Amino acid sequence: MKDIIYLDHAASSWPKPPAIMEAMTRCMNEYAANPGRGSHQMAVQASRALFETRKNAAKLFGVKNPNDISFALNTTHALNQAIKGFVREGQHVICTSVEHNSVRRPLEYLREKIGIELTYIKSNVQGELDLKDLEKAFRSNTSLVVMNHSSNLLGTILPVAEVGEMCRARGVKLLVDAAQSAGVLPIHVEDMNIDMLAFPGHKGLLGPQGTGGLYVHSNVELEPLLHGGTGSQSESIEQPTVRPDRFEAGTQNTVGIAGLNEGIKFVLSKTVEEIHKKEWKQTQHLMEALMGIEGVTVLGPALGQNKTGIVSFLIRHTDSSEVAFILDQSFQIAVRAGYHCTPLAHEAVGTLATGAVRASIGYFTKDEEVEALVDAVKEISSQYA
Amino acid sequence: MKDIIYLDHAASSWPKPPAIMEAMTRCMNEYAANPGRGSHQMAVQASRALFETRKNAAKLFGVKNPNDISFALNTTHALNQAIKGFVREGQHVICTSVEHNSVRRPLEYLREKIGIELTYIKSNVQGELDLKDLEKAFRSNTSLVVMNHSSNLLGTILPVAEVGEMCRARGVKLLVDAAQSAGVLPIHVEDMNIDMLAFPGHKGLLGPQGTGGLYVHSNVELEPLLHGGTGSQSESIEQPTVRPDRFEAGTQNTVGIAGLNEGIKFVLSKTVEEIHKKEWKQTQHLMEALMGIEGVTVLGPALGQNKTGIVSFLIRHTDSSEVAFILDQSFQIAVRAGYHCTPLAHEAVGTLATGAVRASIGYFTKDEEVEALVDAVKEISSQYA
Repeated sequence: MKDIIYLDHAASSWPKPPAIMEAMTRCMNEYAANPGRGSHQMAVQASRALFETRKNAAKLFGVKNPNDISFALNTTHALNQAIKGFVREGQHVICTSVEHNSVRRPLEYLREKIGIELTYIKSNVQGELDLKDLEKAFRSNTSLVVMNHSSNLLGTILPVAEVGEMCRARGVKLLVDAAQSAGVLPIHVEDMNIDMLAFPGHKGLLGPQGTGGLYVHSNVELEPLLHGGTGSQSESIEQPTVRPDRFEAGTQNTVGIAGLNEGIKFVLSKTVEEIHKKEWKQTQHLMEALMGIEGVTVLGPALGQNKTGIVSFLIRHTDSSEVAFILDQSFQIAVRAGYHCTPLAHEAVGTLATGAVRASIGYFTKDEEVEALVDAVKEISSQYA
Repeated sequence: MKDIIYLDHAASSWPKPPAIMEAMTRCMNEYAANPGRGSHQMAVQASRALFETRKNAAKLFGVKNPNDISFALNTTHALNQAIKGFVREGQHVICTSVEHNSVRRPLEYLREKIGIELTYIKSNVQGELDLKDLEKAFRSNTSLVVMNHSSNLLGTILPVAEVGEMCRARGVKLLVDAAQSAGVLPIHVEDMNIDMLAFPGHKGLLGPQGTGGLYVHSNVELEPLLHGGTGSQSESIEQPTVRPDRFEAGTQNTVGIAGLNEGIKFVLSKTVEEIHKKEWKQTQHLMEALMGIEGVTVLGPALGQNKTGIVSFLIRHTDSSEVAFILDQSFQIAVRAGYHCTPLAHEAVGTLATGAVRASIGYFTKDEEVEALVDAVKEISSQYA
């Protein structure tokens, strides 16, 4: 392993608990057959690996029936399935100005393509929403609210449960993008009135890339995004209605999902609450230290507020990409710079011209790694500010 | 590793060359960052792994520009991207009666949803097409022909190059489903006039599940199936037009693709021609031996014909699922029974009531494994026939 200080967990978590690679190796060596496509022992074992993972994801998210969770290539795939599978011509959808392009682009595509109405609820500079704005945005034809649980630029935590209650009272469905919260913030789809939940496997759940999933409440009907073989009801020309098959056409990523299972088990054993507490403490320390450096501006919620492990910042007179480049080349520190696929959030924050440097903390981040970033930013800013 | 005789390579190949797991382990341990989402060393290394794989896939398929290949979750995903991204209202599409549900279902969906016209060219009982039928099927509004390169039930090889020529002459595009041919039959998209090629990573290319791809000729424009972040042109509300980003929204399966790269390299080093020759010999031997057993009927092309490593058969007076079950339980032989997601092919062959037992051979299949299957079928059929 290289001596890199990895602070890019919001893009993909790394390193992973060793159990993940072990499970993947076991799968590849012992049972990498096609799940659901045969009755032989290896195929059955592959199916079982998928079901185990589904069951553990259901446990983590408070989902009653594991079969209401289908696997996906990534969160974007899950969000596209949810949005394009649910929203119909003439309907009105509400989202927020801190959505990722994985939400914004499918919605804008539908606006252009089939003529949906779309309202963006604007956040303040900290990424927070005023729920009165949301209240005013509902229309008689509103069918869906889409929002992230936590901003990928600011780490702000959005009030999903409150929005869930508002939606439920109006018969509007709620789709939550848990890209930055799955595995690091408590999520209970029943208690929070979440109708659909899209989540990545490779971020807070500590699994490999190529995994993710979508929970869909049993009373929500979606048109499948992918049509094809499922190993079930082969004679029908239509996609099976039974879940999860309905949303899982084609061979699933068994080896990845077997790894993801270990990631979810790791999260369940540590508990989301403990993981969040650990990350929050380091986040606060990092924010406080960065705020103390001349010329550095930290974006997002104020110190002391609840948030996820994301700390975005700017150094006066510098370009964010240049800062990230120097951190990488001279300090072996991996962060992300630029727009983070969320231009509206940059607009809200006033960083559309500059982008931002985003450091993001994970469960395995060490205190000394946070210190190393602080020292490096001090050194860089002293040269520029 | 268990002592299983694995003859289900058409569903997923197994075992894999050791280099695949090694590459996946290296990726997870050293550079499992998010490709295209950062400029730091690990992210750059992840991007490079994707590009290397693209380059090797391009080499294998005779693709000029590697960026015309985009990665997908599986062949079904690639086929959905191609079909739904290309076909428009009022257009006419031709496919064959030996297509997999991953082709048939998206096409039937479009017929129902947006009103396309659809013609199935019927195969004979061996799964072969009469190109005169195809010739007659073209209409003035025909935009696309979709066909597999080799049937997943019968192993029949379809005349892709001839169809490509017919399509090119008429300004019609050709989409080829290479689920059963990528890595085991020569494919050259330029020479064969293939406009789009969908391929799996986990079958003949010997990679892990969760991988696959789609080649799209540079002069074919598709609407993206997935909209979302690509790490490029973040500020635009539209999907980038640049390839492969246009068709690769969300985080890609870096670890799987790193494994796939080794699979493709393995195929390139052995050569597709040698792999096919080896599999064909065993296939012929298996067919001949099965044909000699009282009560056994072998489906598909006659002995001596070119075909892929698939041998489907029936035992008189038995249900195909039961045969597969006995093979698994009493002989530790893994084959697949049932409909194989291709009901029309069963109709053509006359096995819609019974299904079929499918044994499929891969590069690592040993002669004694083929013998073991023959012996087992002898024993089973002697009890039933």
